[in-house]
Amino acid sequence: MAKRPKVPEATIKRLSIYMRVLKDLEKKGVEVISSAELADICGVNAAQIRKDLTYFGEFGIRGVGYYVKELHFDIRKVLGLHQRRNVALVGVGNLGRALVSYRNFSEHGYNFVAAFDVSPKLLGQTLLDGVKIHPMAELSRVAEEQKIEIAIITTPASAAQAAADVIVAAGIRGILNFAPTQIQVPDDVKVKKVDLTTEFDNLVYHLYARAR
Amino acid sequence: MAKRPKVPEATIKRLSIYMRVLKDLEKKGVEVISSAELADICGVNAAQIRKDLTYFGEFGIRGVGYYVKELHFDIRKVLGLHQRRNVALVGVGNLGRALVSYRNFSEHGYNFVAAFDVSPKLLGQTLLDGVKIHPMAELSRVAEEQKIEIAIITTPASAAQAAADVIVAAGIRGILNFAPTQIQVPDDVKVKKVDLTTEFDNLVYHLYARAR
Repeated sequence: MAKRPKVPEATIKRLSIYMRVLKDLEKKGVEVISSAELADICGVNAAQIRKDLTYFGEFGIRGVGYYVKELHFDIRKVLGLHQRRNVALVGVGNLGRALVSYRNFSEHGYNFVAAFDVSPKLLGQTLLDGVKIHPMAELSRVAEEQKIEIAIITTPASAAQAAADVIVAAGIRGILNFAPTQIQVPDDVKVKKVDLTTEFDNLVYHLYARAR
Repeated sequence: MAKRPKVPEATIKRLSIYMRVLKDLEKKGVEVISSAELADICGVNAAQIRKDLTYFGEFGIRGVGYYVKELHFDIRKVLGLHQRRNVALVGVGNLGRALVSYRNFSEHGYNFVAAFDVSPKLLGQTLLDGVKIHPMAELSRVAEEQKIEIAIITTPASAAQAAADVIVAAGIRGILNFAPTQIQVPDDVKVKKVDLTTEFDNLVYHLYARAR
């Protein structure tokens, strides 16, 4: 099998946008869309879409455009999103509670199935949708029973590394880290750090950046 | 004045990363860093950094590298981040409370100065750090008094457009929209939609995407 070419991060982010737009179009009953129209809705140019898709194979029909349902399915598969994933929340504060109740996650195939915290006060409580709060010591057992593939860290910064260590020991290979600190994990574990401050910075750049 | 060249989104995001790394280096007392070292810490290659910086002017000294303090300051200025910005929270649920208590925002120059909600039960209450909850009808007055430049929408999807209308009427030109829906605003208002689902998708891609 040929080595997979390195796909730029920006391409992956755009694929995620194309996927959402195609999902909406599919819901509305649109069967075929020209590359110009799709580009317009996604806010990119048509050449960019074609270039992004070439990393993964042949898509679209010259002179016709794209079959919405087919392209939607293909992009989901490319992104590994054609199946649902079970998710654990580690650290039950305001942010954690907000994430568990964020309906969009479930609609996009992410199921919160368990939550974990070090605070004895929280243990045994239940979040929205029946997500139970367990002690950290149960993470390994629950992860196996519930086939948890992704953990979200929403602890304070000072507790994030300890949380990561327990998550890694439980055999979970994907971590979304919302704690404002870096965590160290083995090479076979993927961590995505979510830094909400960059969203502010990006907005401010567009509002105020120095004109040249 | 020459027209500002279009700077790619990916460049702006990377500048935000360079800025954070430079800030840490400055704190640690590092005065000069080679482009190779800086690239390594930022997780990009040195050519990428040089290319990103060329959009904004001349930086770095051949054979020496970059002066940490100077480059940090220059990037902050390029991004419009050399001054603090006052921020309003619109919609006081779990996510809103989590954002107000997220210390990183304040460290990066964003001050939450007021919160707004439609619920009579919340009015007059105070969030962390003395951020008071006002009725929506006071948004215009408070925004002017407190020189609010950015509003964060953390309402349910169904209330987001009404919130945006009040924000725009109050003269606020920058909106971070965390509600899982699109909002319509006039052309002179910038909206950045924050979709946390794309962070999951990106992680899953790196974990499971189809090998080729």
